[in-house]
Amino acid sequence: MPADPRTVIANLQELRALTGDENGAQRVSFTAMWLKARAWFETKLAGLPVERHLDAAGNCWITLPGVSERSLVLGSHLDSVPNGGWLDGCLGVVTALEILRAFSEQYNGTPPFTIRIVDWADEEGARFGRSLFGSSAFAGTHTIAADRVRVDKDGVMLADALTQVGIDIDKIGDASAEREHIAAYLELHIEQGPVLERLGLPLGVVLGTKGVERHAVVFQGQEAHSGSTPMADRRDALAAAARLALEIRTIAKKHPDAVCTMGSVKTFPGIVTAIVGKCETTLDQRDLDAEVLATMLREAKEASQRFAAEERCTVEWSKIWSIEPIPFHPKLIELCEAAILQTTPVAHRLPSGPLHDAAEVARAGIPTVMMFVQSLRGISHNKIEDTALDDLSLAVTAFDNLAAKTLHWMESQPA
Amino acid sequence: MPADPRTVIANLQELRALTGDENGAQRVSFTAMWLKARAWFETKLAGLPVERHLDAAGNCWITLPGVSERSLVLGSHLDSVPNGGWLDGCLGVVTALEILRAFSEQYNGTPPFTIRIVDWADEEGARFGRSLFGSSAFAGTHTIAADRVRVDKDGVMLADALTQVGIDIDKIGDASAEREHIAAYLELHIEQGPVLERLGLPLGVVLGTKGVERHAVVFQGQEAHSGSTPMADRRDALAAAARLALEIRTIAKKHPDAVCTMGSVKTFPGIVTAIVGKCETTLDQRDLDAEVLATMLREAKEASQRFAAEERCTVEWSKIWSIEPIPFHPKLIELCEAAILQTTPVAHRLPSGPLHDAAEVARAGIPTVMMFVQSLRGISHNKIEDTALDDLSLAVTAFDNLAAKTLHWMESQPA
Repeated sequence: MPADPRTVIANLQELRALTGDENGAQRVSFTAMWLKARAWFETKLAGLPVERHLDAAGNCWITLPGVSERSLVLGSHLDSVPNGGWLDGCLGVVTALEILRAFSEQYNGTPPFTIRIVDWADEEGARFGRSLFGSSAFAGTHTIAADRVRVDKDGVMLADALTQVGIDIDKIGDASAEREHIAAYLELHIEQGPVLERLGLPLGVVLGTKGVERHAVVFQGQEAHSGSTPMADRRDALAAAARLALEIRTIAKKHPDAVCTMGSVKTFPGIVTAIVGKCETTLDQRDLDAEVLATMLREAKEASQRFAAEERCTVEWSKIWSIEPIPFHPKLIELCEAAILQTTPVAHRLPSGPLHDAAEVARAGIPTVMMFVQSLRGISHNKIEDTALDDLSLAVTAFDNLAAKTLHWMESQPA
Repeated sequence: MPADPRTVIANLQELRALTGDENGAQRVSFTAMWLKARAWFETKLAGLPVERHLDAAGNCWITLPGVSERSLVLGSHLDSVPNGGWLDGCLGVVTALEILRAFSEQYNGTPPFTIRIVDWADEEGARFGRSLFGSSAFAGTHTIAADRVRVDKDGVMLADALTQVGIDIDKIGDASAEREHIAAYLELHIEQGPVLERLGLPLGVVLGTKGVERHAVVFQGQEAHSGSTPMADRRDALAAAARLALEIRTIAKKHPDAVCTMGSVKTFPGIVTAIVGKCETTLDQRDLDAEVLATMLREAKEASQRFAAEERCTVEWSKIWSIEPIPFHPKLIELCEAAILQTTPVAHRLPSGPLHDAAEVARAGIPTVMMFVQSLRGISHNKIEDTALDDLSLAVTAFDNLAAKTLHWMESQPA
């Protein structure tokens, strides 16, 4: 029997009832509710010939040994943001379990390749502000030195929270041992954006995760009295910032999937009777193409300097964070598209704006692809996050198709 | 001997040393330092045939009785903001004293009209956020009900601070008794803006105080993920606000002396990874012409609604505060110009953006005019506030001329 979408939906509803409340999902990583979700998931393994263990970074691995040690990994994350949705992350983990069960049945307990599920630890970074915690440890890109000192809002240090759940922060890099024998990684996730809904499509092939350039941009002008300073004599830092807020839209719209966002503006002194002397803004730019991303950054910098000069202000940029674009595997993208087309007439290709654990896996050199299912209203990280049940069913079936196609492709790959 | 600028400057320097520190002037109203400034000023009356008293609102009146009870009042305020400048307010009071002294000498102690000095209480409103305290009580426009509950940053209530300096908050309206017999009011003040400096002129005739429309303008869009939301799907409240921030400049520049300022912008949620769902701004608009002010307000409202619609946002306006334009007396404006032209070749006419006690006096129906002297760099409310000593000298002489011309004009007026 192939993977049964009804089982997946029933399990997701069970998990929702167990770990959510009237404000949404509460499976924040390294908390009691997260451990409860993991314990519930463990009960679902009963009767399956699998081995389960946590790696050094707290990622949970479930292994159905095959004829070959070479393995196909299906994964996502059970953790959620506070007041999160019922599908973000857990859809991928719960679907992976149903597919593993179906493979086990199909091959009488021993598939040709090893099948593994991974439930990554702290994808969201909701508690300590460091997302992709477990998958970056696995990929060897985690920066322990920088993250060691992080504290949650109650003042608990990351290291202490990890100790509570049996993780030694100094050893999380050992999670890279799990990379051995992995031939491919597949992840099913909700889109968390409005693109598929706008196109009226249930499923999408994810081309990769966009690169991100995140900067603080600060304009300095001259604070002055709003009543006594003629318009022509002003050095208004807000005016320069406002021009940049509008210009970044023109910059982004030159490229089909690019986005630029000014998410925060702070004005100083910030009172009704004073011209803004200093304006602090943040800029977030994303695209799947590294060259496009670099061009957008350069154009935004040039525009900010031009606006600053014209407003007789100065501007300073400082990097907050950046990551390169991470394209997924060309052959797996093809297989994902074919798997979707087995269930529905159109397979839309799109980049992911949000980061995902799959990006870290791809960075580690493992052939990787993701499949997106439509999000209603494009909303996530909110209790109203939702996907039509028919679309969830299509997603489970298409992702099952993708796993089968990937196993088949692995046969053609050198060991 | 006419009014001696050297005496005025020496007195101002003496006051600065007595009531300032390394951060500037510290004569905040209703504090010990303010009482010290007033006590110092009282010592300067020694030998003059004057009467001194405080009215019910704490304004200090000094009267040199003349042949007629009809009086010419010269005034300003000794109080300062915290870390204020050495000229804001006290220039007018100290100059008034020197002119009164000169009149007393000229007329052997009894001028044809009564000459009075007024030192208004709490012009700045620095401690309780209510500016023009004393002059509005005098004018009968003070709103005790609204101001009674004001507290300073240490939690002291306005009523209690007033009691400390002998003022009963329930009786401040009695200050209107001082209006009797006043025929004209003159005030010398630093410009606190850059206009005269830009023109290279020492002195200006003030046409009146601009009307002010002060509003909170809030745009509501849709918070969304900066990575997953395509540019075309956004409802960006910051974009609508940025367009208004720029449009108000176009609106203001249609009129020679109008100003429009967006002084505060707050973004919600205000994080680098989210499109701004709500943007709170403040708008301050000023002009001397009530019709221009109304037009600018209407244009800003219409523009905000257009931008909101185009960005698929909504906008709401709420009034923070407003005051009508207060033009000064046409004949006194003429006399002020003539008085300036006696000392320097050009007399520039300009409106005042900041409010002054003179506006309250004019609102009470008393013929009023102000003279401005150039502020270096247009800066005030700061320890670096300054005016060239040569310009201060010209100001004292020109203001002395104005007082003489006004006395002469009073002779032609019905009693």
